[in-house]
Amino acid sequence: MLIVQKYGGTSVGNPERIRNVARRVVRTKEEGHDVVVVVSAMSGETDKLINLANQVSENPDPREMDMLVSTGERVTIALLAMAIQSLGHKAQSFTGRQAGIISDSVHTRARIEKITGERLRCAVREGKIAVVAGFQGITEKDDVSTLGRGGSDLSAVAVAAALKADVCDIYTDVDGVYTTDPNMVPQARKLDKISYDEMLELASLGAKVLQTRSVEFAKKYNVPVRVLSSFNDNPGTLVTKEDADMEKVVVSGVAYDKNQVKVTVQGVPDKPGVAANIFNTISDNNVVVDMIIQNIGEGGLTDMSFTVPRTDAKKILEVMKKVVAEIGAKNVNIKEDIAKISIVGVGMRSHSGVAAKMFSAMAKEGINIMMISTSEIKISCVIDAKYTELAVRVLHDAFEMDKAA
Amino acid sequence: MLIVQKYGGTSVGNPERIRNVARRVVRTKEEGHDVVVVVSAMSGETDKLINLANQVSENPDPREMDMLVSTGERVTIALLAMAIQSLGHKAQSFTGRQAGIISDSVHTRARIEKITGERLRCAVREGKIAVVAGFQGITEKDDVSTLGRGGSDLSAVAVAAALKADVCDIYTDVDGVYTTDPNMVPQARKLDKISYDEMLELASLGAKVLQTRSVEFAKKYNVPVRVLSSFNDNPGTLVTKEDADMEKVVVSGVAYDKNQVKVTVQGVPDKPGVAANIFNTISDNNVVVDMIIQNIGEGGLTDMSFTVPRTDAKKILEVMKKVVAEIGAKNVNIKEDIAKISIVGVGMRSHSGVAAKMFSAMAKEGINIMMISTSEIKISCVIDAKYTELAVRVLHDAFEMDKAA
Repeated sequence: MLIVQKYGGTSVGNPERIRNVARRVVRTKEEGHDVVVVVSAMSGETDKLINLANQVSENPDPREMDMLVSTGERVTIALLAMAIQSLGHKAQSFTGRQAGIISDSVHTRARIEKITGERLRCAVREGKIAVVAGFQGITEKDDVSTLGRGGSDLSAVAVAAALKADVCDIYTDVDGVYTTDPNMVPQARKLDKISYDEMLELASLGAKVLQTRSVEFAKKYNVPVRVLSSFNDNPGTLVTKEDADMEKVVVSGVAYDKNQVKVTVQGVPDKPGVAANIFNTISDNNVVVDMIIQNIGEGGLTDMSFTVPRTDAKKILEVMKKVVAEIGAKNVNIKEDIAKISIVGVGMRSHSGVAAKMFSAMAKEGINIMMISTSEIKISCVIDAKYTELAVRVLHDAFEMDKAA
Repeated sequence: MLIVQKYGGTSVGNPERIRNVARRVVRTKEEGHDVVVVVSAMSGETDKLINLANQVSENPDPREMDMLVSTGERVTIALLAMAIQSLGHKAQSFTGRQAGIISDSVHTRARIEKITGERLRCAVREGKIAVVAGFQGITEKDDVSTLGRGGSDLSAVAVAAALKADVCDIYTDVDGVYTTDPNMVPQARKLDKISYDEMLELASLGAKVLQTRSVEFAKKYNVPVRVLSSFNDNPGTLVTKEDADMEKVVVSGVAYDKNQVKVTVQGVPDKPGVAANIFNTISDNNVVVDMIIQNIGEGGLTDMSFTVPRTDAKKILEVMKKVVAEIGAKNVNIKEDIAKISIVGVGMRSHSGVAAKMFSAMAKEGINIMMISTSEIKISCVIDAKYTELAVRVLHDAFEMDKAA
């Protein structure tokens, strides 16, 4: 097998841990596999570099920022290659450029355009363990780019796709994907398997195990991804394409997100173009709206609510005050202490009554639902933030997520 | 004018100092010059990286070592480019590769083969200040190389040569080249001007201001080099080709070197091939011999003495013991507490009696000379280490080095 392994910043956080990763890599090699390793910067290093930048410039240039922070991964690849060599195996480090990771020129959040991987293939053929810098690429202009936070996951999946690897193992500090946050619900169960789509919903909902773009990429190129811990030998969770087994499970996980606020515009005149006016203005301010609901009120007036990231709350309030005046609405208010609770599962496609079960489980505990939105494989509710833990536990219980299918 | 400026690790040792360097660079630009800046890693960074390497491997691979330590300069170029930009000037950083610094493949001590400098020329044409990573290049195989300790000086001189710069300013923590170590002789005088050859002799003799290879390079391509302090505005010392002025001065400087030991092989049979045997063996062990003298003794036996770096003393003693047995010499001993004192000056070519004056100045103070070697522009004596300071002061005085020509 050709296995791509990715180790995050915590897994390579100091020389002792790097030696530990080297032993894992070598073990896989000695089991008879070809191995390509993708690594992040040692934990804390990227922040340290960004801090340096902020000390010399108030508004650092993105190209220079990429030149700066891309050094973190270069340090790790060199150290890991040395550590593997000291265990008696052939190894060679590769920068993003040397690995042939070509990106666009949007510095600090570049998108991978293609991976040539020529030198990696060559190294593997020569029996070497290739150690690749994650998070970075090279632009057409021959400048270093970075792929944004969590970009090393994407590098690993993309390298796996380019090399047609059999599996991409993402080593992290958790040992897989859980039905929900184990810190909140002790009964949370590690999933053996999850579909790309479910993983996408869970990741974007705040269950931050795998970077969203890397899951999209894995789905697109059908790369099987395993999420594993680098600190133990547990089997982890396989993220893969949907199969019949998965559909038997109605709900795979429950996620929560406390990082949104709810904005309500009251007394909106109910006529064409008003909603467009509101959301165009928000979009022009580069704010991403998540859920939207509209209640038809009395006398041709409606109330409109939507959620936006907490960090944008202040900006949005300013913006909306102007819009309210423009469109002749009554007023705007923001509710800060909310949480979004979501259940996710491909089984929803073929099972009915899931929403009803969700709502009644929460109602039984007196949890009021303020907003609802649904997709094919997800139902989300906005509730009062103080009920977050209770709601997660109740739903975990109602859908018997602690039990394997 | 096109000016290449080089700032060493101390000059860019922290964000505040980097901002200070940015101000100097901008000042030069605002005086109407084109500026290309070459920088080292922040002081201490390279050692920190080497220390990490030693924690993961007992014998780190040179290629990986270069991948690792070359990150230090990348951090500095990015930070300096940002700092210059924040002062309202256009700037762009360039790695060794991006600057087109092509080297051979002898990792950790690569030699520059050529500099294309295409992107640098382009940046200068666009009115940008180009910031180049010193100490590093790229091999034909597209791997990062480093030029060895002090390699940033070489990068600067080589870039200056490639771009046909008018001058290469080397900023350091001293403000020029002195007649001798000012810490030892308070009357030491800063030289306004010194020839490449004199600088070479002084540098290799332990007056460590400019890396030797960079002076050789400057001489070869006739690049005028100025040594300046980055902490004040003093005029510094110009290293340039020999001129008539320089020849008026008999002795430009006095240097000392306490990092050698004297090895003496006693009772060497005086027959052909014996010396070759000794020095071939030393060379096979990669030890560089500096001074050699041979005393003809009695009965066809000679004593042979030579100096080697202190760090090689132990190795050489082992090696020579075997050689002594092979050639039938009597024994070998090492004298550790020695110093080499040298006077240097292009004026020696046209002035007689310089050696005699040197020897008698030392004799007057009762300093015994153990070994002597001379070149066209240099006379060196090995003496007892305890007389180092005395000898330097006496010679500085005897040749009136405190007075300008």
